[in-house]
Amino acid sequence: MTALPEILPARGAMRPGESAVDLPAAGDVSLYFVGRLRTPWKERRECPRQGDLVDGPLCRVEVDPRWRAALKGIGGHAHLQILYWMHLARRDLVEQSPRSNGETSGSFALRSPIRPNPVSSSLVSLVEAHEDHLIVRGLDCVDGTPLIDIKPEKCPEAPVPKPPAVPV
Amino acid sequence: MTALPEILPARGAMRPGESAVDLPAAGDVSLYFVGRLRTPWKERRECPRQGDLVDGPLCRVEVDPRWRAALKGIGGHAHLQILYWMHLARRDLVEQSPRSNGETSGSFALRSPIRPNPVSSSLVSLVEAHEDHLIVRGLDCVDGTPLIDIKPEKCPEAPVPKPPAVPV
Repeated sequence: MTALPEILPARGAMRPGESAVDLPAAGDVSLYFVGRLRTPWKERRECPRQGDLVDGPLCRVEVDPRWRAALKGIGGHAHLQILYWMHLARRDLVEQSPRSNGETSGSFALRSPIRPNPVSSSLVSLVEAHEDHLIVRGLDCVDGTPLIDIKPEKCPEAPVPKPPAVPV
Repeated sequence: MTALPEILPARGAMRPGESAVDLPAAGDVSLYFVGRLRTPWKERRECPRQGDLVDGPLCRVEVDPRWRAALKGIGGHAHLQILYWMHLARRDLVEQSPRSNGETSGSFALRSPIRPNPVSSSLVSLVEAHEDHLIVRGLDCVDGTPLIDIKPEKCPEAPVPKPPAVPV
C-alpha cells in the first residue's frame, strides 16, 4: 500500500498555554500499516466522541494481502481491540488547552489525538469475519484511518453484539 | 535516548503450523520512544501473564526530558493506560502455534507479543507522580521496555489504588 505522508500542521495553530517541542530527528522504530478502517465519517469533526459497540454503524476493517493469514480463527471472538494510527494529528504539542474547558494539561494527561505517538485503541464487536476484511461496530475514527493491529478482547462485561460473529 | 536495535530472531525458531511473511522494505510511520518502563522482571519468562493493578509490584515509568512537560496534571488521574513497544518480539509471523494449546491461529486472533506491530497496552493504577517519572502498579513487561504513550483511563470498575495518587 502507499504510505501516507505524516501531516504536521504549522506551528501557528496553537491556543493560549500550549507548548510544543522539537520532534526527534529520527524515529526509534517503524510501524507497518496493515490495512485501513472504513467508517461513515469523512472528517474528524463528524466523528462521535466514543464508539458504540452495540448501536454504532457497521464499519469495515480492511486488511492488506500480506497480513490476511493473520485473521485465521478471528471469527471465534465476539470482541476485538483495534489499534490505529491517528494520521491527521500533529505530534509536537506537550501541553494542550482543549476547547472544552480552557485549562492547560500535559498531553499525557489528556486523551486528545495530539500526542507524540498518535496510536489509538477501540473496543469493537465483531459482526462478520471475511478473508480480507471484518465488519464491526464501535469505531469512532475518520474514514481511511490506517490500521495497526487487531487483537481479541476478553470483555465479559461488554454487551453481546448483534448479529453473532461469523467464523472465517 | 539511544535507539534500540530491532531484534528479529532467525527463521529457524518456528513451530509446526506457523507461517511468516516477508516484512515490508520500509515502515509507514515512525514511533518515538518517550521513556522506559522499569520492572522487577529481567527476562520475558519471569513476567506475569497479566499485571495486577492492586497487588502488583511498584514499577517506574521513566519519561525522557523532551516529553516531561506532557506529564502536567497527570497526578489527578487514578488509572492510566500505558502503551509500550515489545522490543523483543519478532514481527513476521502471521500464523502461530502457542505452546499452551498446540493449535494454530492467526496473529490477529491471539494476544501474543509476536505481531506485525508489537504495541501493547496495560491498565495501571497511579501511585506517585513526579516531574520525570511515575510510580505505578499493574505492569507485566520486561525491565527496560520502551515507553510509547501514557493516557488517562476512566475506569470506574477498577479498584482504587493504594495509597492515593500524589499530584505533580
